[in-house]
Amino acid sequence: MSILREEALHMHRVNKGKLESTPKVPVRNAKDLSLAYSPGVAEPCKDIYDDKSKVYEYTMKGNTVAVVSDGTAVLGLGNIGPEAALPVMEGKAVLFKSFAGVDAFPICLNTTDVDKIVETVKLLEPTFGGVNLEDIAAPNCFLVEERLKKETNIPIFHDDQHGTAIVTLAGLVNALKLTKRTMSEIKVVVNGAGAAGIAIIKLLDRFGVKDIVMCDTKGAIYEGRPFGMNSVKSEVAKFTNRSKKEGSLKEVIAGTDLFIGVSVEGALTEEMIRSMSENPIIFAMANPNPEIMPQNAREAGAMVIGTGRSDFPNQVNNVLAFPGIFRGALDVRATHINEEMKIAAVNAIANLVAESELNPDYVIPAPFDPRVAPAVAAAVAKAAMETGVARIKVDPEKIAEKTMRLSLIGKE
Amino acid sequence: MSILREEALHMHRVNKGKLESTPKVPVRNAKDLSLAYSPGVAEPCKDIYDDKSKVYEYTMKGNTVAVVSDGTAVLGLGNIGPEAALPVMEGKAVLFKSFAGVDAFPICLNTTDVDKIVETVKLLEPTFGGVNLEDIAAPNCFLVEERLKKETNIPIFHDDQHGTAIVTLAGLVNALKLTKRTMSEIKVVVNGAGAAGIAIIKLLDRFGVKDIVMCDTKGAIYEGRPFGMNSVKSEVAKFTNRSKKEGSLKEVIAGTDLFIGVSVEGALTEEMIRSMSENPIIFAMANPNPEIMPQNAREAGAMVIGTGRSDFPNQVNNVLAFPGIFRGALDVRATHINEEMKIAAVNAIANLVAESELNPDYVIPAPFDPRVAPAVAAAVAKAAMETGVARIKVDPEKIAEKTMRLSLIGKE
Repeated sequence: MSILREEALHMHRVNKGKLESTPKVPVRNAKDLSLAYSPGVAEPCKDIYDDKSKVYEYTMKGNTVAVVSDGTAVLGLGNIGPEAALPVMEGKAVLFKSFAGVDAFPICLNTTDVDKIVETVKLLEPTFGGVNLEDIAAPNCFLVEERLKKETNIPIFHDDQHGTAIVTLAGLVNALKLTKRTMSEIKVVVNGAGAAGIAIIKLLDRFGVKDIVMCDTKGAIYEGRPFGMNSVKSEVAKFTNRSKKEGSLKEVIAGTDLFIGVSVEGALTEEMIRSMSENPIIFAMANPNPEIMPQNAREAGAMVIGTGRSDFPNQVNNVLAFPGIFRGALDVRATHINEEMKIAAVNAIANLVAESELNPDYVIPAPFDPRVAPAVAAAVAKAAMETGVARIKVDPEKIAEKTMRLSLIGKE
Repeated sequence: MSILREEALHMHRVNKGKLESTPKVPVRNAKDLSLAYSPGVAEPCKDIYDDKSKVYEYTMKGNTVAVVSDGTAVLGLGNIGPEAALPVMEGKAVLFKSFAGVDAFPICLNTTDVDKIVETVKLLEPTFGGVNLEDIAAPNCFLVEERLKKETNIPIFHDDQHGTAIVTLAGLVNALKLTKRTMSEIKVVVNGAGAAGIAIIKLLDRFGVKDIVMCDTKGAIYEGRPFGMNSVKSEVAKFTNRSKKEGSLKEVIAGTDLFIGVSVEGALTEEMIRSMSENPIIFAMANPNPEIMPQNAREAGAMVIGTGRSDFPNQVNNVLAFPGIFRGALDVRATHINEEMKIAAVNAIANLVAESELNPDYVIPAPFDPRVAPAVAAAVAKAAMETGVARIKVDPEKIAEKTMRLSLIGKE
């Protein structure tokens, strides 16, 4: 048994999981009981009954996020079911609290049916201030998110899509500065048409990238491709690959500036990188092993290389995004997480790398940089207020300070 | 504004509710992250995928209870909806943790439909080790509980029914010792045919009480009564009131030994008590004001008087039951909370009042007696093991010690 396996099992076993529900108020005597429970608790109940918005004042709702999964696409393990997914969802909840003071709770659902997932989350809405969808396989993840965004009044965020897209774009913003390119002129290939790939393409489009080709295992996707399409790929095909390139990744990558891989180990070769433009940018985010190892990419001429791994530079780690995004959204009681809020998160993350520090091995802040969640929270809250999805106004500076105070990162 | 109202609102406002989700493990650096989250977390996931029962070893499930409500019968406030019910469910979760170290989480559902409540709880089952149903109006509460007991493999417990019944019976056991009566010989009137009343009657029956008459607002319930019946009252009528007494409470209470009220203020008069047998026992548990005030009952000849209130002796407070019951059930991974476990809880609570201390003002232990939850947990676990609903065997002594260690009661 590997040391990591042994340590991980031991840690989970001795603690019986990683999350507990803790009182914020003491109940040790009759006086405490009369305030936290009967008869005093009737007072906030009555006030919320009179004005439902007061649920944000008197209860945990405004700081509480459901981490919802059906266990169909967990880590690299695939469809392992809701019980086996629980350690991941607990871990996610631990990260929410540790990085940004957000109370999160795992909801592992005993169904993979889109209608049932949507219905259940809607019925849970009174307790939660927001919902983080996690490890739900494509294409169901798109359907669930789309419906919940329409049918609830709280932020819905599928982290596997948008978290990855936001951090990748933050890295890209800085990689472009370094390689003196602009969003509107770069040529991009995205390899992998799962949840993350689709979200990355949509965000690239929002940032003004014009020349994008998405590949799946069957090669370049183009409008009207007569094989291996689905509704999401068809949607993507409408605004990408306008010249309708056909062929394998190897064929369409030639001459591009940026490769983004959310696919599998070995999908990118040195030969392919050599066919790209000068000083290409590579985000090779397959897990646990990237599409190409960084040293090989470097030898083939890549200038900036990002992966999903903590043992290489430029780690694309979602923990840079979701804690601050929910912190900001919750603190202004946002009804949605919209595109402007995602863009604000991208820029907040990117801007933490000072021009003077920027170099090929440092285009993305480190996961444990304590400045990240406060900066993201403030930027997201500001964008929410500016775009009319915030229910209340709060000074973004105050949100940054609060996030810094609640975060455990950088404190010993 | 009353002082209690002001204090209660203030406490809820400054804390933004009463419950938070807290990590049991630190995540402050890459090493922590690699164990609690990717890649280490894959190890417990894989093991649970291979053997689902390991979810109890590696996750929070085995210590976590959902406090589920639809907000239809909250305190004395009635049908106030799921948002307004949230302060109560948070409070309940606080009590679970404070009294017995059980992690509980409020689930306030945006529906009052029995099928939807049942379906939702079933879909949530992977995360939770047990379910405490709370403040769901009759008759839905009976239907929801009955179906969930059949359709899930975790303990389901409707506290408004069984918690109240268990603590009342504990008080009765001791009141009978004091008044030298036996269960089989007493004549009983139960006033109020809601959730608690029905559960009390079923438990009285279990304890061998033979002569029970239940009254609702229309008077004595008997088999075949042509008005004001429902399925639950009809069921109760089959084993109570065998002589088919008709008439009002005032008429049927004459000559009885025990009045149990789960009805409304003023339902019991001194005159009625005077018509009862000598040294009658009165449990007057209407909230917030009892069916008759204790001093008036005493003047009319009542010997033992219990109420729901903390400012009178013999408080029937559910907090004596549910924390220990779930602690015991969870610790042996019980699949159900059966009648034997409830009876064990009754006797454990009753036995904490020593014969030498027993007196009319002390038939029920105080809510903050730190011996209660450990004793109940051990007795319930033992009963679960003896009746074959425990998935694992644990020494009840160890469970008592653990409960004592986790409880905050009696510690400053």
